[in-house]
Amino acid sequence: MKQLEVCLTPDLLQHYSLEGKVVVVIDVFRATTTMVSALANGISRITPVATLKECSALKEKGYLTAAERNGKKPGGFDLGNSPLNYLKHDYSGQQLAMTTSNGTLAITKSIAAHEIIIGAFINMSAVVAYLRAQSQDILLLCAGWKGRINTEDSLFAGAVAHLLANETELANDSAVAVQSLYQTHETNMEEFLKEGLHFNRLQRLGLDEDIEFCLKKDEYNLVPTYKNGVLIGVVYHPQ
Amino acid sequence: MKQLEVCLTPDLLQHYSLEGKVVVVIDVFRATTTMVSALANGISRITPVATLKECSALKEKGYLTAAERNGKKPGGFDLGNSPLNYLKHDYSGQQLAMTTSNGTLAITKSIAAHEIIIGAFINMSAVVAYLRAQSQDILLLCAGWKGRINTEDSLFAGAVAHLLANETELANDSAVAVQSLYQTHETNMEEFLKEGLHFNRLQRLGLDEDIEFCLKKDEYNLVPTYKNGVLIGVVYHPQ
Repeated sequence: MKQLEVCLTPDLLQHYSLEGKVVVVIDVFRATTTMVSALANGISRITPVATLKECSALKEKGYLTAAERNGKKPGGFDLGNSPLNYLKHDYSGQQLAMTTSNGTLAITKSIAAHEIIIGAFINMSAVVAYLRAQSQDILLLCAGWKGRINTEDSLFAGAVAHLLANETELANDSAVAVQSLYQTHETNMEEFLKEGLHFNRLQRLGLDEDIEFCLKKDEYNLVPTYKNGVLIGVVYHPQ
Repeated sequence: MKQLEVCLTPDLLQHYSLEGKVVVVIDVFRATTTMVSALANGISRITPVATLKECSALKEKGYLTAAERNGKKPGGFDLGNSPLNYLKHDYSGQQLAMTTSNGTLAITKSIAAHEIIIGAFINMSAVVAYLRAQSQDILLLCAGWKGRINTEDSLFAGAVAHLLANETELANDSAVAVQSLYQTHETNMEEFLKEGLHFNRLQRLGLDEDIEFCLKKDEYNLVPTYKNGVLIGVVYHPQ
């Protein structure tokens, strides 16, 4: 039986082996939700970069640029980190360069993995079906907030663990804990997440509409996959 | 209102400030349960040390010695890490030197705190009453397993957070998550913990009797406190 582990923050990644695993990078508020939204709404490919400088450099090469630091858009970039940007405007066919506080770091820390895919509630069932169809062991990597654990990424990891619990071995205690957390809060996610710090940080920034979108399940059947420094969207049709 | 934070493993302690805080060190299976049991059953003081060598050196000075690595007792020490040792034999008045895989490390990593106390289910209500009676912010530090998060320490942190939830601000997402976890499993702790890895590790070592004891609530009203390298037991009478 395939093993499924959960890592609650990239700061604990040293305890995990990446070799031969499919890593699901999770940053519900908002980077991975935004990546799914962008690719599902016409962006052709996304180049995640670590620094604002790298992001700016790609702007000069004709990329659309999206950047976020501390929940806000720094000056000089086209877009911030809202998944709704890609619904409100048509960026079809454009290449996007993207840098965020946590999500892009989690990707670059996972490059030793067999494969890296991107998960969020808006593509939850597609991610689960994708994982179900392949034979590798699974590592769900929560991006967290500056190295700290957060409730929203933990909850999504718990959702995936829960949906795969009968077909995988939940192979570490974090997986067991977040599965239980999701079972408890499956039907009242927003109420539970309201206690969390990042939820409140986003709410203070007036991002209620973003929050609501980030918690919608299964808006898209697309799984972003990371290869050679670039994310592309694989439309995944579960059988 | 006092703040209450939870740190799920010492490997994340760099994200927390220790200054001015009361730290509760938690290693349910079994170091902190054993510390409480030893002090409640006649041991006069405990000197936690990091290495087997330091522990041996204190044996030569007349200390009773207890040591554990990977759940087992290395050769050359009087006792392992079972809390039941102190019920089955009379060690009254003796000084104990103790080294364990995880619990003693969590203590030495916390020395910058205002105060360090020791928590486990067997002294749960005494710990809560002790925290209630003082004014410092609180950090619940789970010892984990070799840097990894475990379910039993998370669950105990959740119990304390739950019992203090009306009087403290749950100040990080880990605190919110473990409180929920405890609320869900308060009445079926063992069933939930059976999914966990360390529980299974101990069971494979034939330590069911230890496990059962470690999950008993409120056997003792004693709170071990750490000062100048030594743990002593403070009998705490909640009002």
